[in-house]
Amino acid sequence: MEKLRYSVILGNVGSCADRYMMGGYSNPFTVEQMFERVAGIDGVEGIELVSDWHITAKNVKLVKEQLEKYNFKLASIIPDHFGEMVWGKGAFTSKDKKVRDKAVSDVKEMIDISKELGGNLISLWPGQDGYDYYFTADYMEERGWFEECLKDCCNYDKNFKISVEYKPKEPRNRSYPSNVYSTLLMVRETGCANCGITVDYGHALVAYENVAESVSVLKKYGNKLFHLHMNDSYGYWDDDMIAGSIHTIPYLETIYWLKKNGYEGFVSTDQYPYREDGQKAVAETLEWLKCFEQVADRMLEDQSVEEVIRSGDATQASAMLRSYLFPLC
Amino acid sequence: MEKLRYSVILGNVGSCADRYMMGGYSNPFTVEQMFERVAGIDGVEGIELVSDWHITAKNVKLVKEQLEKYNFKLASIIPDHFGEMVWGKGAFTSKDKKVRDKAVSDVKEMIDISKELGGNLISLWPGQDGYDYYFTADYMEERGWFEECLKDCCNYDKNFKISVEYKPKEPRNRSYPSNVYSTLLMVRETGCANCGITVDYGHALVAYENVAESVSVLKKYGNKLFHLHMNDSYGYWDDDMIAGSIHTIPYLETIYWLKKNGYEGFVSTDQYPYREDGQKAVAETLEWLKCFEQVADRMLEDQSVEEVIRSGDATQASAMLRSYLFPLC
Amino acid sequence: MEKLRYSVILGNVGSCADRYMMGGYSNPFTVEQMFERVAGIDGVEGIELVSDWHITAKNVKLVKEQLEKYNFKLASIIPDHFGEMVWGKGAFTSKDKKVRDKAVSDVKEMIDISKELGGNLISLWPGQDGYDYYFTADYMEERGWFEECLKDCCNYDKNFKISVEYKPKEPRNRSYPSNVYSTLLMVRETGCANCGITVDYGHALVAYENVAESVSVLKKYGNKLFHLHMNDSYGYWDDDMIAGSIHTIPYLETIYWLKKNGYEGFVSTDQYPYREDGQKAVAETLEWLKCFEQVADRMLEDQSVEEVIRSGDATQASAMLRSYLFPLC
Amino acid sequence: MEKLRYSVILGNVGSCADRYMMGGYSNPFTVEQMFERVAGIDGVEGIELVSDWHITAKNVKLVKEQLEKYNFKLASIIPDHFGEMVWGKGAFTSKDKKVRDKAVSDVKEMIDISKELGGNLISLWPGQDGYDYYFTADYMEERGWFEECLKDCCNYDKNFKISVEYKPKEPRNRSYPSNVYSTLLMVRETGCANCGITVDYGHALVAYENVAESVSVLKKYGNKLFHLHMNDSYGYWDDDMIAGSIHTIPYLETIYWLKKNGYEGFVSTDQYPYREDGQKAVAETLEWLKCFEQVADRMLEDQSVEEVIRSGDATQASAMLRSYLFPLC
Repeated sequence: MEKLRYSVILGNVGSCADRYMMGGYSNPFTVEQMFERVAGIDGVEGIELVSDWHITAKNVKLVKEQLEKYNFKLASIIPDHFGEMVWGKGAFTSKDKKVRDKAVSDVKEMIDISKELGGNLISLWPGQDGYDYYFTADYMEERGWFEECLKDCCNYDKNFKISVEYKPKEPRNRSYPSNVYSTLLMVRETGCANCGITVDYGHALVAYENVAESVSVLKKYGNKLFHLHMNDSYGYWDDDMIAGSIHTIPYLETIYWLKKNGYEGFVSTDQYPYREDGQKAVAETLEWLKCFEQVADRMLEDQSVEEVIRSGDATQASAMLRSYLFPLC
Repeated sequence: MEKLRYSVILGNVGSCADRYMMGGYSNPFTVEQMFERVAGIDGVEGIELVSDWHITAKNVKLVKEQLEKYNFKLASIIPDHFGEMVWGKGAFTSKDKKVRDKAVSDVKEMIDISKELGGNLISLWPGQDGYDYYFTADYMEERGWFEECLKDCCNYDKNFKISVEYKPKEPRNRSYPSNVYSTLLMVRETGCANCGITVDYGHALVAYENVAESVSVLKKYGNKLFHLHMNDSYGYWDDDMIAGSIHTIPYLETIYWLKKNGYEGFVSTDQYPYREDGQKAVAETLEWLKCFEQVADRMLEDQSVEEVIRSGDATQASAMLRSYLFPLC
Repeated sequence: MEKLRYSVILGNVGSCADRYMMGGYSNPFTVEQMFERVAGIDGVEGIELVSDWHITAKNVKLVKEQLEKYNFKLASIIPDHFGEMVWGKGAFTSKDKKVRDKAVSDVKEMIDISKELGGNLISLWPGQDGYDYYFTADYMEERGWFEECLKDCCNYDKNFKISVEYKPKEPRNRSYPSNVYSTLLMVRETGCANCGITVDYGHALVAYENVAESVSVLKKYGNKLFHLHMNDSYGYWDDDMIAGSIHTIPYLETIYWLKKNGYEGFVSTDQYPYREDGQKAVAETLEWLKCFEQVADRMLEDQSVEEVIRSGDATQASAMLRSYLFPLC
Repeated sequence: MEKLRYSVILGNVGSCADRYMMGGYSNPFTVEQMFERVAGIDGVEGIELVSDWHITAKNVKLVKEQLEKYNFKLASIIPDHFGEMVWGKGAFTSKDKKVRDKAVSDVKEMIDISKELGGNLISLWPGQDGYDYYFTADYMEERGWFEECLKDCCNYDKNFKISVEYKPKEPRNRSYPSNVYSTLLMVRETGCANCGITVDYGHALVAYENVAESVSVLKKYGNKLFHLHMNDSYGYWDDDMIAGSIHTIPYLETIYWLKKNGYEGFVSTDQYPYREDGQKAVAETLEWLKCFEQVADRMLEDQSVEEVIRSGDATQASAMLRSYLFPLC
């Protein structure tokens, strides 16, 4: 079975802040230091960048050198639609048309930069696109704006992939691309073949999704799973912890269906290791994912697994999982 | 402004059981008694029936007489896809094709009966269509079955409406039509104009939806809001309480957009008044809804409301809502 | 390391109903049939009974014979405070003093019957003790009633254990003994040494508890963990699934602390296997628990586990857990 | 009926940041500017300060002048146990004894400063006291540390109040003082009469508490409600929105019991108005609270309200609430 290809969002090995510890839980790292830290992790093939934070029009050359130095592929660029004051009340769904226009043109700029760096995917995270209070949004009109802006980005280069990452809330109390289905509706509305979806494991959990089902739904409705962000959480909030530290069976099922469905994109880490050393925390995520892959690979070669799934027999599924997870018991 | 038309699910004025109090929290009522009880509630125009529980091929005449006696319209029939042992592991998504076929033919029977009773809408609630355990379902295939069965029902009579009610969980731990977006995707996949969606207020809350947004999303994507079930809850479970007993502003916003969007269907109560007298509990729901309607009507005539929404200014929205809710403060 | 002692709530191997499938998902079983079914499960030492459902003053002889026939210990009796109409609005916190008195005298009757059957523990589950709507309860007075009734039961025989099981909601929308801390406050208020707490794994999850922490808190505040109910869930509702089918690491940590803290009571299954064969579903729970025990036993003998816990280093804990869960990876 | 006394946490009228918008959603304000902004809000009597952010040993004189200039009382100081790198892994429950000692001595310093400024209450918010990952904490020992440190602070001046604010999670994934009951257990363990609890409305919602019940529980167990933080949220996360913008009836019930129980402390706002003007957002909170107070005052004078509560009749409670909320309908 072909192995999954792993990448790391560069900031995952940096320092994290939150709304109370605004100065960060540890000292900051430079872009070069973060590249070096990722290079110290076993099994990473790609790098994912956030604009403004890691990549701008001004440091393209530096980033290119770093990618080449460590032989990393560019997995994706995430245009910053969430971290500068201009985006505070939305990017694609800002009530100010000038802001919406800038949100689109920033994406286009990042498409150009991506191509320069050998990339072929933009992963959009519309964190500020939503609303907070009742009676402060015309939901129909604003979803329409989102779809228009998204379509505009997709049409800029039909051979370049645009992928939308969903999340029910945070930083807005309510986001428009809130779950896999909501986002699929918007993606389909664009009518663009190069438009797809990024599943973030923890975001999907907050949406009460079973991620194995989410990735399968994307397979069913047009093979729309374009990208993946891995982490873990207690399920109620985007805790952005080490993947595998909380969920075991559901992670295994996700990897099982991912490989069964023939997923070919990158699998990125997306963590906020506030109190951990980021390099070690990312390395742990990769080690867990590789374990899940090993077990999933064995299950994929075992015809009886498919039979159990098709039977729907929960006690058989339970016994089967136990035999795979605790072969020595 | 035209008034909303209210209907009652017949069992709402009956006795309720749960998994612990299996014999019911009070003594049962006959169908005739329940009709009489609904007739004692002010402002009800329609009745909604559940097959097996209230309507079968055998008591059509009785039900017809009751509807006529009290001059009630048939708002909808909900085919029983959840209450008989045959449906325990799914109706449209049962792994047994014979069960799927029966699920479809039962719907068709209820379409015929509806027409005999003057109705034009089936509201499907696929409570058993989902799964409980990991590795017990092929999510793509089973969603496909759902869409096929649904399409088959819709094609039976293209002038008759088929509406699907969603819910994230219960009685299955995970349902396929889990939220408004998931269900819209399935409805659109049928390609049938007579296929739409029933929003249950409490089900939407469990899905972390803002119901005002949900009904607007349905307006946007093809005017697909066909039916409504009203109740209230603390938001984490389908508590099926008196509408308005928990939520105030979000209920008001829902009614505001419902009327603004020109909703023309029935507004049914859907409650489980375990420890209350069902007649009084339904009457309370209607009284709250009428209050929300009064305030919403005033807001719809007030141009500044629209302006506040379009401004997105939360403190203005807050002040506006306070002036509508506490005009005497 | 001494092994945990397992017991089964008798109804777990019977038929389950819910508020929609009121007639049950399968045909019912007699008490004798359920005893026989439990006897067919490997490793069960005790039986837990619910009054009214499995044990009444009238069938004590039958139950005694069954216990002896299969050489089962009586793990506990759960007095029915939730399944008969009289309890619909509360038992210990009913607003009707006569109902409160009956709730207490029923417990005393079950203490007598327990002793006749060789038992030494009542596990109270106050499912109806709480409230549903705002402005329908004097919270101070009703908690006071609960404490008085509980104390009265405890004083009936100071050598007999009374254990209270908590749950945030269901069947009431809000319960008084809602989480481990709320219940500890009430238990302590009685001042009775024979008064303690039953932790139900799924109930604790709904309360956003980490069960390993909950059992440790009970150790800290007076060794108050008297009994355990095992099952699993997605965390948002009391799904009552096979233990281990959803949670892996948190279950392992719970067993680790349970054994480290020297827990000596029974470990009961408490499931609602709606769509499964109950006998198989209970057997699965036991098999998972035994696996967790095996791993926990090895961890308890490994000095470095304690060191990792005391270091608080999340990446070390992650690596350690991976080595225990995936020793072959 | 005596009126509630309102205060404002100074930073509420400043600029807010989050983990994405690390530079803040608007430009920062100086301490003097924030004082001036609070002075522009109608009905504020007190100011609450966070150490490091608003008050340190170095600016006591400045703060004193500001309090006097606007005739504000010092409602409380919140010692910073969450915003500097030293606290990243806990304050009272840091695994490093030196950090625990510093956490205590910082509180003592703030007690001294409070007294200099005319205050009599420290409100502790142990945001970093908890844990994130499984197998990284000895729950018994760490709760013990918390209780020891708390007791040490309380003993510093027995005439000065120390109040602990609880929250289930954030910034730690799991906090020790997680809900009102957990915190009460710790407060009682200190045995100090000057030790009590701060209820934050939004924190309590995340803990699935009905705040009216929480404040009553504190009344029952020793009159331990020392302080209040007001805001609103959708219930799943600490959204820190305008109080009253989401919840209506539950807020009214909270104010009703607060006044009925004779609460005498300050009622502070505690908001994060990311995208709003803080001054306006705080003013809105006060306006809503005053409305709730007006209605609650009328209810407290109405004997039938008490009767409805004691009857526990949900339909009567519903009708009563409707008449108070919609007197014109």
